[in-house]
Formats: sequence, C-alpha cells, structure tokens
Amino acid sequence: MLKEFPLEQKQEGNWKEELKGLRLDLSHLQQPVKAAGLPVVVLIEGWGAAGKGSLIRSLIRELDPRLFQVVSMSEPGQEERRWPFLKRYCQAMPERGKVLFLDSGWMNDTVRERLRGDLSDEEYRRRLRSVERMERQLAADGYLVVKLFLHVSQKTQRQRLEKLAGDKDTAWRAGENDWRQNKNYARTLEVFEDFMTQTDRPWAQWKVLDATWGPQVQCQAALWLRDCIRRSLKLAPQAETPALAWPLREPLHLDEADLSKHLDKERYQKELKACRERLEELHNRLYRQKVPVAIVYEGWDAAGKGGNIKRLASALDPRGYEVVPIAAPTPEELSHHYLWRFWRRMPKTGHIAIFDRSWYGRVMVERLEGFCSPEDWQRAYDEINEFESELTDFGMVVLKFWVHIDKDTQLQRFQERQNDPEKQWKITDEDWRNREKWDQYEPAVNEMLRLTSTTFAPWMIIESNSKEYARLKTIHLVIEAIENRLNQKE
Amino acid sequence: MLKEFPLEQKQEGNWKEELKGLRLDLSHLQQPVKAAGLPVVVLIEGWGAAGKGSLIRSLIRELDPRLFQVVSMSEPGQEERRWPFLKRYCQAMPERGKVLFLDSGWMNDTVRERLRGDLSDEEYRRRLRSVERMERQLAADGYLVVKLFLHVSQKTQRQRLEKLAGDKDTAWRAGENDWRQNKNYARTLEVFEDFMTQTDRPWAQWKVLDATWGPQVQCQAALWLRDCIRRSLKLAPQAETPALAWPLREPLHLDEADLSKHLDKERYQKELKACRERLEELHNRLYRQKVPVAIVYEGWDAAGKGGNIKRLASALDPRGYEVVPIAAPTPEELSHHYLWRFWRRMPKTGHIAIFDRSWYGRVMVERLEGFCSPEDWQRAYDEINEFESELTDFGMVVLKFWVHIDKDTQLQRFQERQNDPEKQWKITDEDWRNREKWDQYEPAVNEMLRLTSTTFAPWMIIESNSKEYARLKTIHLVIEAIENRLNQKE
Repeated sequence: MLKEFPLEQKQEGNWKEELKGLRLDLSHLQQPVKAAGLPVVVLIEGWGAAGKGSLIRSLIRELDPRLFQVVSMSEPGQEERRWPFLKRYCQAMPERGKVLFLDSGWMNDTVRERLRGDLSDEEYRRRLRSVERMERQLAADGYLVVKLFLHVSQKTQRQRLEKLAGDKDTAWRAGENDWRQNKNYARTLEVFEDFMTQTDRPWAQWKVLDATWGPQVQCQAALWLRDCIRRSLKLAPQAETPALAWPLREPLHLDEADLSKHLDKERYQKELKACRERLEELHNRLYRQKVPVAIVYEGWDAAGKGGNIKRLASALDPRGYEVVPIAAPTPEELSHHYLWRFWRRMPKTGHIAIFDRSWYGRVMVERLEGFCSPEDWQRAYDEINEFESELTDFGMVVLKFWVHIDKDTQLQRFQERQNDPEKQWKITDEDWRNREKWDQYEPAVNEMLRLTSTTFAPWMIIESNSKEYARLKTIHLVIEAIENRLNQKE
Repeated sequence: MLKEFPLEQKQEGNWKEELKGLRLDLSHLQQPVKAAGLPVVVLIEGWGAAGKGSLIRSLIRELDPRLFQVVSMSEPGQEERRWPFLKRYCQAMPERGKVLFLDSGWMNDTVRERLRGDLSDEEYRRRLRSVERMERQLAADGYLVVKLFLHVSQKTQRQRLEKLAGDKDTAWRAGENDWRQNKNYARTLEVFEDFMTQTDRPWAQWKVLDATWGPQVQCQAALWLRDCIRRSLKLAPQAETPALAWPLREPLHLDEADLSKHLDKERYQKELKACRERLEELHNRLYRQKVPVAIVYEGWDAAGKGGNIKRLASALDPRGYEVVPIAAPTPEELSHHYLWRFWRRMPKTGHIAIFDRSWYGRVMVERLEGFCSPEDWQRAYDEINEFESELTDFGMVVLKFWVHIDKDTQLQRFQERQNDPEKQWKITDEDWRNREKWDQYEPAVNEMLRLTSTTFAPWMIIESNSKEYARLKTIHLVIEAIENRLNQKE
C-alpha cells in the first residue's frame, strides 16, 4: 500500500479555499451525525513528523467541541501496561453521534513494539487478531471506522525532523522513535505495510494519503472523511466539481421569449426548401467526418414538437438518423440508473438521434409528480451536465430545444384538437391535467434552463406560437451548429 | 498500492473448505440482495493471466443465474469506438437486486491505451474524470461498486504466460497485450498504480489481492465481496472464526446440577476458615506476580450471590479487589458498545474484580426483555468469547459462576424475605415478575452455558440450595484456579 505509492505528486488546486469549504461541509454534517446517532472513529496513523497533529487541528477547526473529541495516544506507560492491549482503545471510543479523532493508536503501538523486537511472531499475530476483533465489533455496533495513513518519503521525513530538531522550541517533537523510523525507513515501511494489509477490511479500510504538502493532505483527508460520513448516513456522494463550476450561459427565462415572432407561409415554404437542401448536404459531411449529433426536444404539450421534428427529419437521410420517442420508463428501465436508457439510445459517430422528450424528464415530470426524491432531482442537474459533457467531449453535437408557446395558445390548440374528429386522439385527459400544473412547471423549466444551459450543450428557446417560424428557426439552429462543428474539424 | 504489496505470502488455511463455505454465504446473500433491490457491480481488474476468469468462475459457482451476469469486456472494437467511452459500461450495468461481474473494464481499457501512447495526458485526465463520474453516479443511485485488483509478480506472470503459450489449447489466452505488460512490468505497474490512486473513493475503493495462488485469492475475494455486500445491506460483519471454532467445554446444563448437595454448619465454619487463610496468601502472591483476576457472578434472584460474594471478598485484601455491581446501564453507557462499560472496570495486573452480574446480561435480560435486537444478542456469544479471550490471553484468570437454585427454593426465600421486616427491602415486584419468566430464562441460560463455556473461561455451576455448600465450593474453585495459574507462572 505504501512503498510505490506515488508520493510527491503535487496536484493543482486552490487548497486553502477548498479546505475552507470542506471544513464547513464537515461542520454541517455534525448535526446529521448526531441525529442519526452515528459514532465515528477517525484513526490517523503515519510516519513520525508526517503532520498528524496539524491534520487534526485543521479538521476540527469548524467543529462544535461538544460533538467531537481528540485523543492523543502516547506510548502506553507502565501503568497502562497493566491492562489488556485493547482496553485503552475500547475505553476511548466515542458515544453515538460523536466523532473521535485518534492521533495514532493501535497501529502505531503495535508497529513500534514489533520494530523494537518486543513482540514475537505469535504475539504480533495475536495483536492483529485483537485489532480485527475490536474494529469488527465496533462496525457491527454501527460505528464508522475511518483509517488514514499519512505517508512521506524518507527524505521528507528527515528534513522535517532536522527542522524540528534545529529549533529549541520544537526539538522535543522530533522524538527518538521518529529518528529510528527514519534510519530504518525500509524496514519500518515493510512492517507498516504488513500491518495495514492484514487489517484492511470492508468496514475499516485503510486510506493512504501523500502528506508531503500540508494543505493538500488536509484537503484530501477532509474530503475522504466527509464522503465516508456521507456514505454512512446514506447520503449520495457529491460531485467533486461544485455545481457552480459549470460553464453556464447567460440564464434563459421563459418570460423573455418573444412569442409574437411570426413568419408568413410563402417565405416559410421558400426558406424551408433551401434549408432542407443545405441540411441534406451537411448530413453527408457529418457522416463522412464521423460526427454524432443528439437533438433534444422538450416543450409544452401542443407546442408543436411533433410537426417540428417531422420537418427536420424529412431533410435527413433515413439511414443516418433515428427519432427516439421517450415515454414513461418500463419496469426494466426503472430498475436501472435513470440515465441508463438514454446511454443505450445514443447515436454513434456520423449519426443523428432526435429525442422527442429526454433525460430532462427527471427535473420536470419526475420532480413534479414525485416519481423521484427531492435529493434525486436536485442531484440530477449535475448528473445531466456531466452526462452531456461526456457526450460533447467525445465530439458529439448536443442541441437542446425548448419548444415554447403561451398558455392561451395551448388552450386554443387543445380546443381545436378536441373539436376536430381527426385530431381528437392527440388530446387526452392527461394533457388537461398537465395544463392545470402549468404554473408549477414554469419555475421548474426556468430552473432547468438556468442550471443546464452549459456552453458545451446550451438550451435554445423555440418560440412556437407561429409553427412556421418555429420550424424554420430550429432547422437554422441545427444547420448552424453542425456547420460550426464541421468547420472546427477542418 | 501495488509494488510493495507483500506478494507471495502464502497463508495457512484450508482454502478449499473455506471457499465452499464462502460460496454458500454468497448464494445465501442473493435473496436479501434481491429483496433490498441492491445492484452490485464487481469489477475485477489485474495483470494478464492473474486469474480473473478463474476467479469469476469460482465466485459464481453456487449463484442463481437469474440473479447475476458476467460480462467480459474485451478490447473495444471499431464499432464500439463510435460511442463515448462510458457507453458500453453504463449500458452493461445491472438492474436493482442483481450482481454484475465484469472481467476487467474501464481500468484495463484506459491503462492499455495509456501504455500504448494512444492517450494524451489531457485525454487520460478526462478518462479519470469520466470514471469518477460514472462510479459516483452509480453510488448515488444506490449501487454497490466493488473493485478488485489481482496482483502477481513479474516472474509469476511470465511463468503463467509461458505455460499458457506452451499448450496449443491455451496459447490464445496468452495475448500480445499480456506479454507487453510482462516485458514492461515496472512501467505498467506505475500506470496501474496511478490509475488506482486517482480512482480510489469511499464509495468505490480498490482492494488489491495477491493472486499468486488460485484458491487463496478466490477465498479472499469471496470474503471481501461477501463482507461488502453484507455491509451494504446493513448486516453486521461476521467474525472470521466461525462460532463453532471456539474451544468449548462439555456442555453444562442446569437440569444436570445436583441441588441436593449440602454441607453442615460445623464443617462449613471449619473449612471456611482454612480456605480464607489460603486465599489471603494466594492474593499476596497474585499481587506480586501481577496476575489479574475477574470473577463473574450470575444466577437466579435469591440464589445467594450477595452472601457468596461477601464470604469470598472478606478473605481478600481490600486494597487489591473491587466488587463491581452491574445495574441497568446509564444513558452514557447505552450510547456506547455494550462491552464498553465492562472494559472500563477490568482489574489491572495483581488485582481482583468481582462482578455482581456482568456482560452476560446481553444474552439474558437484554435478550428476553427485547432491550437489544435478535441480531445483537445472537452475535454476542461470539463477541463475549472474543472479549474473554482478550482477557485471558493477557494473562487474566476469568472465572464464571452460575449460582443455581431450584424454583421452589426461590419461592421459599422470596416468602421468607417478604415476611421478615428486616429483609423486605430485598424483595421487589421486579423479582416476582422475573420469577414468572423462569421458564423463558432457563433455555437462555442453558444456551449461554453451552456457547460461552470455553476452555479458557469456563462456566461453573454453583449448586446453592445449601448456601454453605455454595460458598465453600466457590472459594475452592477460586483457590484452585489461582493456584493453577500461579503454578503455570513459576
């Protein structure tokens, strides 16, 4: 676990800033930990002078002292040796809802004695067994056991010890045992390694951290601890890139759409013809250049998605595109991650997939109808941005259209459908029910437009009170996006 | 994680037998996995020819094929490369309640391309990010992600490849890529190590296994997987030593106790005096030789524990013993592991602690009154044996007395207490209520005597219809146990 661990790999990052955020995350977890009655043991082991003490000071800075405790396990004294090995650890264990930070513990005690030759093979094996028992009994009782090892190179350790020894105020901190570790680095490493390998269990797994740089290791430890606690509380893991870090476009807002935009039939027919020819040509080039395209249609009922898709598709070579209608998920789809069914329908290189509704159902219908938990749809903005960034990183063109009308236009179209025997099938009770929820959907749509309109996969509002205007605008946008991508490629 | 992993450490054990048991454990977990709707992904990575395929075959042998799937991810073909990197993995993910075994996957694909120079630094970083996203999104959706790495030395890998290549039936299995790994072992190791370090997360942690010996690694993998699944299902981890492996004494049974045993007052007084002198002397020797002693009293109400303890204690030097009465736990005690309060009261070397009731409350009153869950008290037999074995391994003498009377004698003593104004305080409604539960307690006591009467900390039944007989027998047993221990020491 240790020797070929890639040490001294400085990673980029504003560690100090991140650390502040992580400390707050940890402090915000204290109440949930208390409420859940989760007892947490954080064992911090590592080389002498690796920074165990500084790490603990850094982790606890924002914590409520009533809810955590720090115990420094110094070498057991004569008196402590009068009890079984495990006693002082078992006794120090935190009560439910509290966090214990242990500045080294059962590993350090065992390894030190082992290196000194104070433990026979038999005694050492017995120690390992004792540790296994204690950790398992704690886990069985609901304890979260987090074990960190702070790792530094022989050279780094020596430099630190020399620095400590050189200052009379800190000289006491470079102890005899630390120097002995440094002089016998390879042998010590071997004993560390053996102890850790033998005590690595699913409920008490080791995590090795590169302790060469203080702020970096403190960040990594805080992140690890936060995520272990979140996991024990059954909270979903968080994205490492906070949501705000997405490169978002200027926020779109439905209210700002100019629905009076209009196109007369004659101009529409003429332009449509030109556009279709252009699109046909581009589709060929797409195919040769192996660019995949995903086009997402979302929008109000009766906004004209179907007709819009039809006009767009009719300009494409049927061998190179697919229209993917998204209905309610099947039981099989439901029993997977919600993005699973969309991964399966992604276009391959050179192909176009047109999605009639899409993965955005998560933050609209699933959100509003309670088909998923609030945590699920809140997490989905990030998940969707990640999903689309996987697609665009691969070279896919991702276009997202919100086909927009106003409430009056919807009513008018519903009534037309209802009154026209040939169109009656297009209108259902479901549509009327959804219409009643217009005012709930609107803010959800605006939130979606705001949080998922990234520079790499932006939303576009298609003003569709005039269907002709809408269709032509869509095709223009598709042409423009494909041309841009093909020009980049050339 | 890899290079200084202590390889080729053959461990003792009847691997084949253990494997059988573990395979059954895994098969018994399938229904709970299904019932909980837990989706499980087991990613098996490792060196070429490390035995990934054999491992999977071994793990699935007892599994129900309707509840698991094996997917071998060969190198992506031309067609597969027409989609984003993650697609084929996301698509292969199991549905809720099922287990997917992946014979290598996103790590192998990335490392192979990295080693060939097909991935720039930028593309490699993007891969790592994709993997992080996929694993996190799965975990957030409730997936258990288990990642195993099968590790072998360069030499072992070469020998295996040569063996495969030497047989025309298996020659195809020693692929070009495997030989390339072997020839560039050090460089490959570095790339493995980097990938694993960068993708190690609390919800998708790596586990490295020594794959030098097939049955050993299969056992370790099965154990790891079993425990990861148990953990996800919130089942308590199990002891590695199955309960039956404890060295138990011939089972004691309350029915077999001869309660007619009796002692006349005169002989009692005389013998008691001699015993007390002997005990005083032994206590001194205990102190000098630093032997700690724990004496546990359990038994029926009114069986005479108090009087018995009093006679024993009066022979001891008050500076060297303590009587520890165990009542209902305080709120602080309740919020720790149930053994916590007993760890705190353990005698130090040279001292004697007499427990008036003890940790056995877990499998008696807590069990019968429902103060803990069935899983808690069932697990407690093992936990107690482990606890006592920690004590005796340290050199403590542990004696456990069941102070026994029959039901009629109890009734008679209750009535005497009730009728004697000076003893009335000793009898409460609680005692009468407990008496009503005699028939429930009796099988629990017998089970306790059977499962926790180990050779290192045996139970002894003290027949106490005659208090004089009981007291003298107890003191005799204490003397005998201490003498035995002191003789061992000399």
